Amino acid sequence: MLSKSDVTQMIYEKKRTAGLSWASIAEDIGMSEVFVTSACLGMNSLPKDKAEALSRNLGLPQEAAIVLAEYPDKIFSQTVPTDPCIYRFYEIMGVYGQTLKELIQEKGGDGIMSAIDFDMSVDKVPYEKGDRIEIRMSGKFLSYNAW
Amino acid sequence: MLSKSDVTQMIYEKKRTAGLSWASIAEDIGMSEVFVTSACLGMNSLPKDKAEALSRNLGLPQEAAIVLAEYPDKIFSQTVPTDPCIYRFYEIMGVYGQTLKELIQEKGGDGIMSAIDFDMSVDKVPYEKGDRIEIRMSGKFLSYNAW
Amino acid sequence: MLSKSDVTQMIYEKKRTAGLSWASIAEDIGMSEVFVTSACLGMNSLPKDKAEALSRNLGLPQEAAIVLAEYPDKIFSQTVPTDPCIYRFYEIMGVYGQTLKELIQEKGGDGIMSAIDFDMSVDKVPYEKGDRIEIRMSGKFLSYNAW
Amino acid sequence: MLSKSDVTQMIYEKKRTAGLSWASIAEDIGMSEVFVTSACLGMNSLPKDKAEALSRNLGLPQEAAIVLAEYPDKIFSQTVPTDPCIYRFYEIMGVYGQTLKELIQEKGGDGIMSAIDFDMSVDKVPYEKGDRIEIRMSGKFLSYNAW
Amino acid sequence: MLSKSDVTQMIYEKKRTAGLSWASIAEDIGMSEVFVTSACLGMNSLPKDKAEALSRNLGLPQEAAIVLAEYPDKIFSQTVPTDPCIYRFYEIMGVYGQTLKELIQEKGGDGIMSAIDFDMSVDKVPYEKGDRIEIRMSGKFLSYNAW
Amino acid sequence: MLSKSDVTQMIYEKKRTAGLSWASIAEDIGMSEVFVTSACLGMNSLPKDKAEALSRNLGLPQEAAIVLAEYPDKIFSQTVPTDPCIYRFYEIMGVYGQTLKELIQEKGGDGIMSAIDFDMSVDKVPYEKGDRIEIRMSGKFLSYNAW
Amino acid sequence: MLSKSDVTQMIYEKKRTAGLSWASIAEDIGMSEVFVTSACLGMNSLPKDKAEALSRNLGLPQEAAIVLAEYPDKIFSQTVPTDPCIYRFYEIMGVYGQTLKELIQEKGGDGIMSAIDFDMSVDKVPYEKGDRIEIRMSGKFLSYNAW
Amino acid sequence: MLSKSDVTQMIYEKKRTAGLSWASIAEDIGMSEVFVTSACLGMNSLPKDKAEALSRNLGLPQEAAIVLAEYPDKIFSQTVPTDPCIYRFYEIMGVYGQTLKELIQEKGGDGIMSAIDFDMSVDKVPYEKGDRIEIRMSGKFLSYNAW
Amino acid sequence: MLSKSDVTQMIYEKKRTAGLSWASIAEDIGMSEVFVTSACLGMNSLPKDKAEALSRNLGLPQEAAIVLAEYPDKIFSQTVPTDPCIYRFYEIMGVYGQTLKELIQEKGGDGIMSAIDFDMSVDKVPYEKGDRIEIRMSGKFLSYNAW
Amino acid sequence: MLSKSDVTQMIYEKKRTAGLSWASIAEDIGMSEVFVTSACLGMNSLPKDKAEALSRNLGLPQEAAIVLAEYPDKIFSQTVPTDPCIYRFYEIMGVYGQTLKELIQEKGGDGIMSAIDFDMSVDKVPYEKGDRIEIRMSGKFLSYNAW
Repeated sequence: MLSKSDVTQMIYEKKRTAGLSWASIAEDIGMSEVFVTSACLGMNSLPKDKAEALSRNLGLPQEAAIVLAEYPDKIFSQTVPTDPCIYRFYEIMGVYGQTLKELIQEKGGDGIMSAIDFDMSVDKVPYEKGDRIEIRMSGKFLSYNAW
Repeated sequence: MLSKSDVTQMIYEKKRTAGLSWASIAEDIGMSEVFVTSACLGMNSLPKDKAEALSRNLGLPQEAAIVLAEYPDKIFSQTVPTDPCIYRFYEIMGVYGQTLKELIQEKGGDGIMSAIDFDMSVDKVPYEKGDRIEIRMSGKFLSYNAW
Repeated sequence: MLSKSDVTQMIYEKKRTAGLSWASIAEDIGMSEVFVTSACLGMNSLPKDKAEALSRNLGLPQEAAIVLAEYPDKIFSQTVPTDPCIYRFYEIMGVYGQTLKELIQEKGGDGIMSAIDFDMSVDKVPYEKGDRIEIRMSGKFLSYNAW
Repeated sequence: MLSKSDVTQMIYEKKRTAGLSWASIAEDIGMSEVFVTSACLGMNSLPKDKAEALSRNLGLPQEAAIVLAEYPDKIFSQTVPTDPCIYRFYEIMGVYGQTLKELIQEKGGDGIMSAIDFDMSVDKVPYEKGDRIEIRMSGKFLSYNAW
Repeated sequence: MLSKSDVTQMIYEKKRTAGLSWASIAEDIGMSEVFVTSACLGMNSLPKDKAEALSRNLGLPQEAAIVLAEYPDKIFSQTVPTDPCIYRFYEIMGVYGQTLKELIQEKGGDGIMSAIDFDMSVDKVPYEKGDRIEIRMSGKFLSYNAW
Repeated sequence: MLSKSDVTQMIYEKKRTAGLSWASIAEDIGMSEVFVTSACLGMNSLPKDKAEALSRNLGLPQEAAIVLAEYPDKIFSQTVPTDPCIYRFYEIMGVYGQTLKELIQEKGGDGIMSAIDFDMSVDKVPYEKGDRIEIRMSGKFLSYNAW
Repeated sequence: MLSKSDVTQMIYEKKRTAGLSWASIAEDIGMSEVFVTSACLGMNSLPKDKAEALSRNLGLPQEAAIVLAEYPDKIFSQTVPTDPCIYRFYEIMGVYGQTLKELIQEKGGDGIMSAIDFDMSVDKVPYEKGDRIEIRMSGKFLSYNAW
Repeated sequence: MLSKSDVTQMIYEKKRTAGLSWASIAEDIGMSEVFVTSACLGMNSLPKDKAEALSRNLGLPQEAAIVLAEYPDKIFSQTVPTDPCIYRFYEIMGVYGQTLKELIQEKGGDGIMSAIDFDMSVDKVPYEKGDRIEIRMSGKFLSYNAW
Repeated sequence: MLSKSDVTQMIYEKKRTAGLSWASIAEDIGMSEVFVTSACLGMNSLPKDKAEALSRNLGLPQEAAIVLAEYPDKIFSQTVPTDPCIYRFYEIMGVYGQTLKELIQEKGGDGIMSAIDFDMSVDKVPYEKGDRIEIRMSGKFLSYNAW
Repeated sequence: MLSKSDVTQMIYEKKRTAGLSWASIAEDIGMSEVFVTSACLGMNSLPKDKAEALSRNLGLPQEAAIVLAEYPDKIFSQTVPTDPCIYRFYEIMGVYGQTLKELIQEKGGDGIMSAIDFDMSVDKVPYEKGDRIEIRMSGKFLSYNAW
């Protein structure tokens, strides 16, 4: 029985052999690259038709489409990530976490930004003093319930 | 001798008494609200003139301006934050961390987004199905050195 | 400047001296006992008028009402709680967590139960083989976004 | 020798192939879906006849029934769960734990809600502002012994 | 307002000054020394009349009796105890924990020994090869519920 | 080369197939059930003749007797056990640890109860309000050395 | 009421003011420097007459002698010590721990070296290639009980 | 390719089959038993000729001698050891660590005992009240550099 | 599909068999030994031509060059390293971390030394009182952004 | 009685008031800025005459010189530092730790770089693409002892 991580491994292998990019894999099924990448890494579920399209495009076995559409267990094993590229985001959250809370709640009242009704993009933007990475996150504002 | 956290406490007190917002405190010294809030919380240093302006505007003691301009020790004590508003960002980093790395490095080569040459904004955006919080982060792309 | 925990301490003191119950404190301001207790313990913010009513009923100082209405930092310091009454809930979540996920997602698709748009009640119910505690939780079902 | 996790794996495989639901698996042996799911995940033991019925219904090997009736080691390896659907319950316990203790002990005296003489249900309830998940827990009230 | 730990401190002080033993403190109120000691250390609540008797016997302030009868937060801060006398019990639980489970469940079916409906005694017993400490624990057997 | 855990696995398999109890396995070699169970689980070493007898009784391979007599590495991997049946003992040690220390040292002076020169029994005792589990531990009192 | 750490603080102060050594403090009461130092640091209890002698010699208040003779809570808060002088011993235990176990048990059978019936000395020994520190530990061999 | 732990496994197997002792294995190559045991457990590197001698004596494959002479990664995975025989040394370091530091630095000035230029022995010494284990450690005194 | 750690294993094997040094492996592709070693250990990516050269020089399979040029996940699993040679650097960072921060920021203003635009060398330097290891690190100074 | 951290606080205060730099404080007593800064932060002991000179130069009380010359407890409380300027060094040690070990041992044999017989410098070096921080560490090579 194929697991999510078996399928991730297959996709990495196809990417290495065929020299594919996440951008093209995502574009070929008409979804965003952040969402598709996260689904290929086993952290989100693809809608059924998208899972089948992706599976077909990459020449994966039949069962892979079923696996890609299954609801994942979102397990991340490093409480504090060590890879520098990922750690920097952890650090930003540590340094600016309280700031984010102060401003979100100043703007919206007692509540949070949803991480479920949520989307995100990543772009590289040319800039005179050196290219910049731009991350845009958007999540629904949720008010705490009082009862 | 005043510490960063003494000054933070003073600012919270002024905010409560005078009913101020982070937005107005920041606007009054002509800087962004994310940066000013983080400096007031002791996580960044204000440029000297801005520190003096902020201190003057809020009626803080003389020494507070010096403190606000000092370089902070960025200590965050919760390895995993518990406040739901902050935790959601930790969760996003856990769920999407590897995805961010894949895409940043697909776009820029082996490297990272800087958390130092970095800025961020927070907005609440009206939306038919419910208001959304939008976070925009921008950091310089840094390539790993090979030597 | 009064903190949330100063106010909690004051309320405990009033309770001890006057022999009050959480049930009556909550009823006197017309809200549920779970929500009011959590707000008194510094884990939720009361609506402004309720904060004033509670403060008035208990004879707390003026500033206490402001504090009770402020948005709390929800910090819980024990990663694994040690008090047996609280630990049992931690244990239930450990033993049944995956089960809850399987069933919530079988019923609603890939998503979660909100802990923000959320309410809860606690009751003691007489039962022949010994009284039972009944907890009822209700949270909005939130679907993961695909984009 | 089959282990609990071998049997869980077999059941997942049957579910995927035959498109079964936990609801139907449970109903077919006349027990609740929470309890049956938890037993299938290796966190509870089924009564012997139920284990045999379930095993027969799903076409599992003979030994599986014995395994399903064996008393499990209830090991959960994530001290703080990372899957958002499970984490929200951890968060609720962190935010409301002390509140639950205050109210249970106000109603019943010094004691706890049992997590052993315990049952639970999960339902999705339609609601105008969006469907809700309702969890109901019931556990025997146990008084601390004084001696 | 007196806290549990203030009262513990007072009792230690009385013990040191008056040279009292836990045995006599317990005997004077007609309860076991394990239970009374644990209550004096803030880990259990005394019945109201016993709290008053103990308070009177030791010459504690009026409020101390109320505090001794309040339901404690059972917080133990060392996940792994370091004092050798306490650590040995932790070690016994580590080395024999699975054994205890195997035997309790072999004798009683799937279930546990309650730590709530529970009592314990400690004795020193003379023995030719050196005195021995004897611990006796007794807890109600609780069967897991199947539903 | 057989390891302790290989032999444990073999014994579990024999128990499942032959429907044996720890009680009978222990009785058949004339030792206590606590000690024999712990040795079978790899947490103690059996005297050589007992290891051979047990091995013969269960029909284990020759090498198993050698393994059962070898001195074990007593590794327990869960710092805080999660199985409810084992956790309750951890909880008892957390709640009553300081109490045990106070009473052992009141009775014997500065010292500890040995966990090495130690024995333990587990019994289920019928009782009108529900059967009880009784644990009896006995360890040599060891005085701290002063030099 | 004086605590162990109050008395430690007093002794440090006397040492600084009077320029005393642990060696002389120990010699003046006729005990070893390791044991006396550990008692002054709150990690052991002095026999009553020694506590009084030490207290008198250093001109400590009356109550200090009582405190020095009380049985300590041996709490060490750093799971892994950071001071290099202490860490090296932790490292030795990590690197040679299994070796010590193999050799102690090869020489004595299944058992341990007691840390209770125990003594230790520290010496500096001149040596041509640079002075050496010599630690000698001696603890009673304790055999595991089989029953 | 053989790893250090493969070779350790081979040596354990030879020991079990041939009934060898660490003492004889060490003596046969003319080195101390502590050092040789630690090298066999993968925590030290043997000089090349000694590695070859040991390998020859035990009849290990050619490659084993190379492996025994390679510089090890000294990884110990348990931050706090659980085996009682090893834990007691951890406990001694916790209880006496600060004492060792005070005395080493009183004798030698600001510095440490080296754990690298280091040797150790383990002996069992007969004693009327029961045999004792004697550990002797010797490490070069290293002064902190001031510059 | 070859992983980074498969390739590391292959390189170690070549080194053992052919008696190669990191110095020669690095020199043969004209890069520094620190960078090449780190890439061989899976902690950096080699430029494509260098990866091919190294792969060819060592006689690795075709795919190894692709793997060596892929961007690594920089995972280090020991939060606190235990190998003494690595731990000493951790200790230096613990002891001198705040000092480094004070001096870097005194010289450059509020900012950090980059660990990305970074290089390092390791040398052994003969010295009369014993050879010394010299580490030289160089990283770009990055100023915190104010906005 | 002044503690190390009291003296650190006094020095910070003098620095703030008088606008001093670590460079000038160090130069005024003729020692390196890394060592003097670390001693002022309580992580090293100054030679007695240097402690007195520094104390005199900054106008600290008499006792401060004694404190600065006392041997410190090198306690660092963050296992993983959070300040970005310090974290980067932790990250370097994580990413390059094994590399450092491989190269140090390739150059010197099985051994380590001493962190005790050790010195370090920090410089800012102008560079066309942006100033660089240069760290130079030098520690004695210590060979493991074989015995």
